[in-house]
Amino acid sequence: MILIDYPEKSQWQELLKRPVMNTESLFGVVQGIIGRVKAEGDEAVREYERQFDKVELTTLAVSPEEFEEAEHRVSEELKAAIRLATDNIAAFHASQRFEGKKVETRPGVVCWQKAVAIEKVGLYIPGGTAPLFSTVLMLAVPARIAGCREIVLCTPPGRDGKVHPAVLFAARVAGVQQVFKAGGVQAIAAMAYGTQSIPKVYKIFGPGNQYVTAAKQLVGLRDVAIDMPAGPSEVEVLADGTADPVFVAADLLSQAEHGVDSQAMLITTSKELQQAVKDEVERQLEALPRKEIAARSLANSKLIVVRSMEEAVDMTNAYAPEHLIIETADYQSVAGKIVHAGSVFLGSLTPESAGDYASGTNHTLPTNGYAKAYSGVSLDSFIRKMTFQEISPEGLRQIGPAIEVMAANESLDGHKNAVAVRLKAIGDVK
Amino acid sequence: MILIDYPEKSQWQELLKRPVMNTESLFGVVQGIIGRVKAEGDEAVREYERQFDKVELTTLAVSPEEFEEAEHRVSEELKAAIRLATDNIAAFHASQRFEGKKVETRPGVVCWQKAVAIEKVGLYIPGGTAPLFSTVLMLAVPARIAGCREIVLCTPPGRDGKVHPAVLFAARVAGVQQVFKAGGVQAIAAMAYGTQSIPKVYKIFGPGNQYVTAAKQLVGLRDVAIDMPAGPSEVEVLADGTADPVFVAADLLSQAEHGVDSQAMLITTSKELQQAVKDEVERQLEALPRKEIAARSLANSKLIVVRSMEEAVDMTNAYAPEHLIIETADYQSVAGKIVHAGSVFLGSLTPESAGDYASGTNHTLPTNGYAKAYSGVSLDSFIRKMTFQEISPEGLRQIGPAIEVMAANESLDGHKNAVAVRLKAIGDVK
Repeated sequence: MILIDYPEKSQWQELLKRPVMNTESLFGVVQGIIGRVKAEGDEAVREYERQFDKVELTTLAVSPEEFEEAEHRVSEELKAAIRLATDNIAAFHASQRFEGKKVETRPGVVCWQKAVAIEKVGLYIPGGTAPLFSTVLMLAVPARIAGCREIVLCTPPGRDGKVHPAVLFAARVAGVQQVFKAGGVQAIAAMAYGTQSIPKVYKIFGPGNQYVTAAKQLVGLRDVAIDMPAGPSEVEVLADGTADPVFVAADLLSQAEHGVDSQAMLITTSKELQQAVKDEVERQLEALPRKEIAARSLANSKLIVVRSMEEAVDMTNAYAPEHLIIETADYQSVAGKIVHAGSVFLGSLTPESAGDYASGTNHTLPTNGYAKAYSGVSLDSFIRKMTFQEISPEGLRQIGPAIEVMAANESLDGHKNAVAVRLKAIGDVK
Repeated sequence: MILIDYPEKSQWQELLKRPVMNTESLFGVVQGIIGRVKAEGDEAVREYERQFDKVELTTLAVSPEEFEEAEHRVSEELKAAIRLATDNIAAFHASQRFEGKKVETRPGVVCWQKAVAIEKVGLYIPGGTAPLFSTVLMLAVPARIAGCREIVLCTPPGRDGKVHPAVLFAARVAGVQQVFKAGGVQAIAAMAYGTQSIPKVYKIFGPGNQYVTAAKQLVGLRDVAIDMPAGPSEVEVLADGTADPVFVAADLLSQAEHGVDSQAMLITTSKELQQAVKDEVERQLEALPRKEIAARSLANSKLIVVRSMEEAVDMTNAYAPEHLIIETADYQSVAGKIVHAGSVFLGSLTPESAGDYASGTNHTLPTNGYAKAYSGVSLDSFIRKMTFQEISPEGLRQIGPAIEVMAANESLDGHKNAVAVRLKAIGDVK
């Protein structure tokens, strides 16, 4: 960990810098895989599964029998936890349903928005060391609540050709209709363009490594929407002298264990807390199974002491963390000043883990400072808002002449004429 | 115009195809310009303005005197029209303000969303034959209502080094603080990375040619958010035998005059209407100043007769037009079945022109079938929704054990520990 005391504002930019991601260097190889999947479909997906996931697949779709088997292999304890998390995620996302209001902007001119679900969505769940069933819930539950008609999930199988049972159980509970064994670039390409067995979708969600990110960037240029740009996960704890160093250390470690490029940062007004957190992190680290990953990530972790809470808030807004935990005496007032963060956790009993799994908020959040321009995944991510308008004769009289003037001044006489023929028809001849 | 009668469903895909856009072939040259602007700032912008817009600029910022002068040069008639449009756009977008609800997903677990404006936004307004002051309103009015702190506008000057007065007047009325003389790729790069005079922004909005589109795609990969992917403008009129061919023809022409790649399409249940519209388009075309552009665009325009209103609706949803005008007897019931369109215009007195200029809805809309996954620009485009949560001791007891189980099953013991240390502190030792 790097201890930094009272940095000058001129140093902030350097201090808050993230590692540069360079996915463009992968575009060539990734585009090649995308092109083949687009052209050859399932055959290409199977071949890349052979090559990258070392698995021989005859069918890509997970069968009803495999779902059945998965159900038996998940412990009752985990099932209950997944159901509790599902209920909370569903409750929070259902509260986000949108009802458009009809607005009469002038007498006889009525405009409104209507929310409509994206019909077909694709969810990508990475493989690797741990089964990310929590991400299944975070993407599939809102998709179901939004009313998406077709929810497709792709995830790489293990070498035994099976998908982890907890992933399948979570998919079933969350309402996913179709799960396919496909990972990496080939999965993204399959969902972007469709294959014989994997349906084409309109929007792709989910995390992944740098190849998956590059693939989402490339297909997202024109052919399919994507959730948001990706980057390594990160947490900032903003704390004063009242914070418990044991909690703060545990929160930093829970981020650090994600991966060697994870960012964990403390910004505090208390020099004592900084030192206590450092000691406590070292103590807790010893007991962690993923100690080596966490230790490597912590090597770049910064514990920064600043002069005032105001400065701490400014630095936080400049950093725009994905997760922000506020452990201060007056955390509500501090939270009111935060404008750049993905998700904010208030007070000493609200760890990031709660939002990662079970409180109900979404854990798919903007990293890499993207919180300055992007929201995390929410019900909004699975809908579109269409606008509607209806104009009465009175309404056309109200706004028609202004439209004619503006259109003429933009040299668009056809636009003007579309109003003129109607004004004439309702008896307002010019 | 191409008349098509009762096509089979198997022909739809071919029939509804848009022209393929290939911006990737421009990436090399566009990336070069972006790179120089990023490295050299204003100096590079000025040089590209010299090269592409044939204008020698000493300062890029529009001066207060230039704003003043513009105000004098815009006619009172146009000023009044711009003010009326501004009021309506403001009324509709202000109605879209979001208030997050606090949701208690479990006793003691409280989650909510909060809308926060994107602090810095950049608006791009193309130059060319017509001054697009209406687009200034469509982007700047919602930005102001959202509460964006810094609204920057770039637009290429004419050869006289001036920005069109109507654009400056609209910018002033809409609340834009800073207007810069910069066009094309150099403008997008300047707003993405900042120069000595043009501020860096977090999200870039606005239309443009294929170079601007390519530039937005490239900077949007990682460095700045963009509004949505771009494509040529398009309208579909969905009509039955009750529609007035004069209105329908005027609506198709108002789209066709935009550019040679504009798409104008009629889908109707009436063979008679198809013929009448064809004749009427030819008649009205003669009177249009932009007749040559419109004629070239109309050459690809399709007038399609289908067997039933149900088929018309299905075909419309398959096409997903940017603008959809419904001129049928029971247009409300037809509109209820539309799931894919950017903006929908209901009944015979609601031309697309209304939404293009003055009814209050936004005219920045998803083209190229993107309506299947994207919304048009709205107040949402200028905000982010951050999530917050606060958990009480009771709340932690409610969900803590489930989090521990899920974290352990994802092999993330640090996540589990962040809960365990807190449960221990509140006396729930395990």
